[in-house]
Amino acid sequence: MRAVMKFGGSSVATIDLMKKVAQKIIKRKETYEELVIVLSAMGKTTNQLLSMAKEVTKYPNKREVDLLISTGEMVSVALLSLILQDMGYHAISLTGFQAGISTKGTHTKNKISDIHIENVEKHLSKDTIVIVAGFQGLNEDGEITTLGRGGSDTTAIALAAKLNCVAEIYTDVDGIYGVDPRLYKEAKKLDEIDYEEMKEMAFLGAKVMEPRSIDIAQNFNVTVYVASAHSDTEGTYIREYKNMENKKITGIAVSEKVIMVSMRKIPYSTRLTAELFRDLAKNEVNVDVINQNPGSGGTMNIAFTAHADDFDAINEVLDQFLIKYPKANISKIDDVVKISLIGSAMRTQSGIAAEAFELLANNGLEFKLVTTSEISISYTFDKQHKEKAVDLLARHFGV
Amino acid sequence: MRAVMKFGGSSVATIDLMKKVAQKIIKRKETYEELVIVLSAMGKTTNQLLSMAKEVTKYPNKREVDLLISTGEMVSVALLSLILQDMGYHAISLTGFQAGISTKGTHTKNKISDIHIENVEKHLSKDTIVIVAGFQGLNEDGEITTLGRGGSDTTAIALAAKLNCVAEIYTDVDGIYGVDPRLYKEAKKLDEIDYEEMKEMAFLGAKVMEPRSIDIAQNFNVTVYVASAHSDTEGTYIREYKNMENKKITGIAVSEKVIMVSMRKIPYSTRLTAELFRDLAKNEVNVDVINQNPGSGGTMNIAFTAHADDFDAINEVLDQFLIKYPKANISKIDDVVKISLIGSAMRTQSGIAAEAFELLANNGLEFKLVTTSEISISYTFDKQHKEKAVDLLARHFGV
Repeated sequence: MRAVMKFGGSSVATIDLMKKVAQKIIKRKETYEELVIVLSAMGKTTNQLLSMAKEVTKYPNKREVDLLISTGEMVSVALLSLILQDMGYHAISLTGFQAGISTKGTHTKNKISDIHIENVEKHLSKDTIVIVAGFQGLNEDGEITTLGRGGSDTTAIALAAKLNCVAEIYTDVDGIYGVDPRLYKEAKKLDEIDYEEMKEMAFLGAKVMEPRSIDIAQNFNVTVYVASAHSDTEGTYIREYKNMENKKITGIAVSEKVIMVSMRKIPYSTRLTAELFRDLAKNEVNVDVINQNPGSGGTMNIAFTAHADDFDAINEVLDQFLIKYPKANISKIDDVVKISLIGSAMRTQSGIAAEAFELLANNGLEFKLVTTSEISISYTFDKQHKEKAVDLLARHFGV
Repeated sequence: MRAVMKFGGSSVATIDLMKKVAQKIIKRKETYEELVIVLSAMGKTTNQLLSMAKEVTKYPNKREVDLLISTGEMVSVALLSLILQDMGYHAISLTGFQAGISTKGTHTKNKISDIHIENVEKHLSKDTIVIVAGFQGLNEDGEITTLGRGGSDTTAIALAAKLNCVAEIYTDVDGIYGVDPRLYKEAKKLDEIDYEEMKEMAFLGAKVMEPRSIDIAQNFNVTVYVASAHSDTEGTYIREYKNMENKKITGIAVSEKVIMVSMRKIPYSTRLTAELFRDLAKNEVNVDVINQNPGSGGTMNIAFTAHADDFDAINEVLDQFLIKYPKANISKIDDVVKISLIGSAMRTQSGIAAEAFELLANNGLEFKLVTTSEISISYTFDKQHKEKAVDLLARHFGV
C-alpha cells in the first residue's frame, strides 16, 4: 500500500511545525508502507522571494522568477528529510527535476507534461520516505519551472496518478465544507464530494483546492483526501460519487478575489475588442464575465471580471492598451463579491436556478451579473451584500 | 574579449548592493564584450540555512545539506539577472547544473570534475551576460552538490579556465596585502603574487582566497585578478611571475582559526594512532601538525592542530573515539595562533629560516610548534603573542 501526502506552506512554516508533520507521516506509515511526501515552501517564503523580485522591477522576467521561487520548496524538503532521518527513518528529498517532473507551458504557470517516476520508485523500493519539492519541474529546455497557483497539490495528485494511489492533501482546514464556516457558522463538513462539484467550488472561490489539480485527479481517477494537517479529524474524500446524494446544492462558494475592470470611451471596433482579449489570454489572464455595450460618439464601453491574482497581468495589458488609446477611461473595481451555488443535481433538476432567483428577489438582494454553468449559478454582488446573501442561500439550501 | 567576474556574499548582501555590483558589471562590459558573472549567496544566507539544519540535528546528512544550501546562490543569481534586465541588458541566470558544472567527491566538499560549457557559450554568443550560481554543481548520480570553502571562487576560476580568460575576484578588500592591514597598519598591497605564494598564504590563513581555487588557476594557467567590489582601486594579479622580485618574504599569513587537540592517557598503540588519523581523514579533516609522545604506564599523548572550521568533523571522530576509549583525556585548545612567512625566494635562499629564528629568539618570543614547507615557515604561538610577533616579522622583512 502506498500514498502521497501533501502539506502546504502554513503546515511547514517552522521547524517545530515540520516536526509535527513528521510525526503525522510516521503514524501514517503504519497504514502505508510506501509514502511520498510533497511539500510547499515554508510559510510565506514564496511571497517573500516574489517581493524581492518586485523590489527590483515591476514586471520581473518570469524565467528568473521561476528559478528564484523554486528554491523555497527545495529548502523545506531538505529540512523535512533531515527531521525524518533524525527520527531514525530513511528519507530523501528530491527537487522537481530529480523526481522526474517534466513540464511545459509559460514560466510561472507551467503544466506537468509527464513524470519519469523511476527515481521515486527506486527510493520507495528501498523503504525510503521520498520527499518531493512541490510546485516545480523542469521543461524541455532544461529550465526550472513552477506550476502556478495550487502547484503543490498538482504535484501531489500527478504523483499519485503515476503511483496509482491516493493523494492526501493536508491543510489548515479539516475538510471541505458546503460553505466557508467563517462566513456561515452552521456550515456542514462533507464526507465526500464529486470531482465536478469540487472543481466548480474551487473555480468559484473555495480556497481549499485549485480546479486544475482536481482536473488531473478526475482524469486519472485519483482519490483525493482533504484533511487537517494538525488534527486527526476525518476529512473529505473527493472522488466519483458512488451514489448521488439527494441534495439540490452541494456547496456555496464565495470569492472576494474578483476584480471588475470597466473601460469607457474606447473606439468602437470589434478588432480592438478581439485584440484586447487576445492580449489578456496571451498574458494568461482568465477573464470571467464580459459585458460590452456602445457608448456615445462612436465609442464603446467594456466591462469584465477576472481573478484578483491576475491584477499584475491585467495591468501589463492595460498599460499597453493605454499607450495605443490614451483617451480610454479605465477603472478597476474590487469591492465586488461572487457567490456561487454548486451541485451536480443541477444537471437533472431544472428548477434550482428559478428557486434561487425568487429567493433573492423576495429578499431584496440585487446582483450585478449572473453566469451559469452545467452545475453552478454565480451571482456578482456589491461586497456589502455578502453576509446577507450567503446566510440566505446557505439556510435555504441546507449546506 | 571575455572575462569571468566573481562577487562574494557580502558584495551582494542586499538588493541595493547588488545594484552597485550591476553597475560595476556594466562598466566592465565596455572592456569585455562577453561576461560571465559568478555569485555567492546573499550575505549570511548560507550560514542561516546551515543553522536551520543544525536546529534539526547535530550531524545533518550532507546530501540534504547540499540541496538546502545550494538554494542561496540560486536566489542571488536570479535577482542579479532581474536587475541587469531592468537596466536594459540581456542577462540570464544559470544554476550549477544548467551551467554544465559536473562534480564528484563527498557531499558539501565536492570538486569540479568538468564543465560542459556549451550552454554558457550559447548565451554568450547572443550578447547575454551569463550569471552562474557559484559553489554548486551536479554529480554523476544527478545529486546537487556544493564545493565547500571558497566554492564560488573555484566556480569562477574553473569557468575562466574553460572560457580561456581572466577570472576577476571582487571582494571586501582591494587586493592582496603582504600582511593583513588590520594586524599591521603599514602593510603594503602587492601588484602581483605568484600561484605558489598565494596558495601558501591562503593555506596558512590569509582569508582572501582558498588554496584549491588557486590550484586550479595554476593548473590551467588562469590569471586571477583580486580587487575591491565597491571601489575602482587597482587590485592584485595572481599569475606566474614574469620576473622574480628581489624580496626574501612576499607575505605573512596569520591564522587564528586553529584548533589544537590534546589527547592524553590513551593506550600506546600505533594501530590506534593510524585508526584515529584515518578516521579524521575519512571525515575530511585536514590535520596540520601532529605531535605524539609516550605517557606513563603504557599510555601515550597525541597533540595535533587543524583548521577551526573542521571543529564539528573533529568532534564526530572524537565522540566515536571516546566510546571506544572512555579513559582518554581529550582537550581542545583554541587560544593559539599560527604565523607564517611565505616567499618563493625561500626556494633559492637558505638563510631566511635562520634569520627568522634568531629574530624571534632575540625578542623573547617563544613558539609552541614550527613547520616548514618549500616556500614557507609557520610558527604556532600563544594567542597573546600575536601582535608582537606580526609587528616584529613584518617590520623586519618589509612586507
